[in-house]
Amino acid sequence: MNPGDRVRVQRADQTYEGVLLPSSTSQNLVVKLEGGYNVGIDRADADVDVLESDVYDIETGETDEESAVEFDPDLPTVSLISTGGTIASTVDYRTGAVTAQFDAEDVLRAVPDLAGRANYRGRVVANILSENMTPDVWRDLAEAVYEEIEAGADGVVVMHGTDTMQFTASALSFMLDTPVPVVFTGSQRSADRPSSDNVMNAVCAVEAAKADAAEVMVCMHATESDDACALHRGTRVRKNHTSRRDAFETVGAKPLGEVAYGGDEPEVTFRRDHAERGEADLDIAPELESDVELLKFTPGMDESALDVAEGKAGLVLEGTGLGHVHSDWTDRIAELVDSGTTVVMTSQCIEGRVCDRVYDTGRDLLDAGVVEGEDMLPGTAKVKLMWSLANGDDPEATVRDPIAGEITERSVPWE
Amino acid sequence: MNPGDRVRVQRADQTYEGVLLPSSTSQNLVVKLEGGYNVGIDRADADVDVLESDVYDIETGETDEESAVEFDPDLPTVSLISTGGTIASTVDYRTGAVTAQFDAEDVLRAVPDLAGRANYRGRVVANILSENMTPDVWRDLAEAVYEEIEAGADGVVVMHGTDTMQFTASALSFMLDTPVPVVFTGSQRSADRPSSDNVMNAVCAVEAAKADAAEVMVCMHATESDDACALHRGTRVRKNHTSRRDAFETVGAKPLGEVAYGGDEPEVTFRRDHAERGEADLDIAPELESDVELLKFTPGMDESALDVAEGKAGLVLEGTGLGHVHSDWTDRIAELVDSGTTVVMTSQCIEGRVCDRVYDTGRDLLDAGVVEGEDMLPGTAKVKLMWSLANGDDPEATVRDPIAGEITERSVPWE
Repeated sequence: MNPGDRVRVQRADQTYEGVLLPSSTSQNLVVKLEGGYNVGIDRADADVDVLESDVYDIETGETDEESAVEFDPDLPTVSLISTGGTIASTVDYRTGAVTAQFDAEDVLRAVPDLAGRANYRGRVVANILSENMTPDVWRDLAEAVYEEIEAGADGVVVMHGTDTMQFTASALSFMLDTPVPVVFTGSQRSADRPSSDNVMNAVCAVEAAKADAAEVMVCMHATESDDACALHRGTRVRKNHTSRRDAFETVGAKPLGEVAYGGDEPEVTFRRDHAERGEADLDIAPELESDVELLKFTPGMDESALDVAEGKAGLVLEGTGLGHVHSDWTDRIAELVDSGTTVVMTSQCIEGRVCDRVYDTGRDLLDAGVVEGEDMLPGTAKVKLMWSLANGDDPEATVRDPIAGEITERSVPWE
Repeated sequence: MNPGDRVRVQRADQTYEGVLLPSSTSQNLVVKLEGGYNVGIDRADADVDVLESDVYDIETGETDEESAVEFDPDLPTVSLISTGGTIASTVDYRTGAVTAQFDAEDVLRAVPDLAGRANYRGRVVANILSENMTPDVWRDLAEAVYEEIEAGADGVVVMHGTDTMQFTASALSFMLDTPVPVVFTGSQRSADRPSSDNVMNAVCAVEAAKADAAEVMVCMHATESDDACALHRGTRVRKNHTSRRDAFETVGAKPLGEVAYGGDEPEVTFRRDHAERGEADLDIAPELESDVELLKFTPGMDESALDVAEGKAGLVLEGTGLGHVHSDWTDRIAELVDSGTTVVMTSQCIEGRVCDRVYDTGRDLLDAGVVEGEDMLPGTAKVKLMWSLANGDDPEATVRDPIAGEITERSVPWE
């Protein structure tokens, strides 16, 4: 048997019929089922019958059963923008691992369940794993989203690698005023794995893109089960686990809403206040000052680490606790501020608000000119500082001003 | 009325009687009650009667009611080692904030509830806020703990600022083989605040130090209530909130155990496997290679950021997802490894295991010589790398070897 053959696989009391795909492991068979789903099956104790040889062209993904996607005037239009990442990945034969090589049309082919939910416009902005994402691509992506909405898209789905999705979602949150949902989704497990989350995440993201909302959101598995995707605000979301499908969490609050999955039809529900469809006029401010560093303080670190910010426009510090660094750092920070670097303090605690007015050492940092980053996530603060330096007359004031839900209201006083 | 006066405060239907302490805010009165607890009372609508002037010396903390602590041969001996931090803090009149100025004996005076639970030995290793903690102080502290146990202590409580407690607890976890509990505790709110956690945390820590266990642990509030303290393994604990009293959490597992509080007597329970009292022989390996950096990767960061590790003995990278950085970094990382720097990859996701064998870019990092840090917390990985470089013949092997619970077993396979 070879990849591309139509096979029937019997294992225990289960039978699978479909096209054999290349597998990245010798342990598993990967079969593309009739519905378009891929399933991974342990080779041990599996009986395989080849029903027909070579029915599927592995290189092009073409089969005899290609379903035509026709325009339906009763459906909304959703733009699928691909940037790469696991959700748009297939097997890389050379190395046995996963590389990004699909464009937006391939996503439709890979996820037949998307058909009938919307009319789709496909667009490729990049084809990179998300650790290679750069501020330049954020700008290109914001401009592409802007153009898609201007061209009539009722919602946008951005397919993105999960590693840095939160940074890109933050960037678009600051860059765009949007009258429709802009929904990031991705996949923690590639399509050839038995536990892949690519189909459900993509379907839920399309449903969220059709919803009565106008937020930049991240749509990913809410639990380890396949029962719902959570909708996270782009500026408050964080990938909190290396591999779990429900790795993404809203920090310091509940998610905005969810997309229930597993019933007859996915159902979108919002639990928290959110911008409504059509509330904002479409606008874009894509400029960024890229000359900004983020520096995490840990014990034993010399203040010479601050040299990385010498002559830079901005520096985000990821301090300890309420926003502290070794007090030996204070004078060097004051010098940076005096020379024109905007320095923003955040906390490596991740949850909770920075407050440098409690302890001597914190007040010394304020005297040195440090700007308190409130309860912004450090990564979000870096993106916001880049944006504020390029778009605000008074970057410090812009950094402290809530713009896209990145600073939560002080619901519970510090004490 | 002045600080030091004995007062009676009536507010709503509550009456408080005790010594007036200086307050850091104009909004609150702080009264030291008879039992030794401090209570903060909103000045609004509070009626204050001065019962007696100047009964308490604010500078020395001495009153007429000082209780004598006598040796009780039936009680175990617990060493209280102070390093500074909020739990050993009082009001700083100069600035209105909190500075560290108590020694271990003052802790006994400030927390009368400790009396009768053990015989105490007091010792001051440092008097610093924990953001100023250094590897040199970790060594001094490990040696002090070693000496206390050698001198007969049945358990050790280390009072430590909360900002970097997890780093110091990790350091002692690697440096010490201990036959008795070594329990870190601290306070998220200073003693003059109504919601201070200093009394309960100190009492629970002393009870944990008497328990049948022999781990380096962190003992802090388990919930926002005063019902229990959690006992966290020193290498797996993280301060996950800037200000909450239950900021500390065990990452990737349940805490080792807890100390129930609020009943007649605190009760220590262990829920997970732990080393038992007397199981290990006392030993110490306090040397550290301090020439180690931790670098957090974020999008937009240039590979020149790696220059900070030039010529250094070790570098911990805090990558994205399963352990990635921009692929432009790979060659520079290979150069660092070739020149003798041990480079360990961890993940900024915090939860989950690093795995660089899934994607091309990860395998390129492995080819460059990067060591996978398994599921070690990045901060713990930095401490362990410092320790491994000074104590292991083969630092890479030592980094990968579970030594003090810092690497959890692979309980659930990656897929």
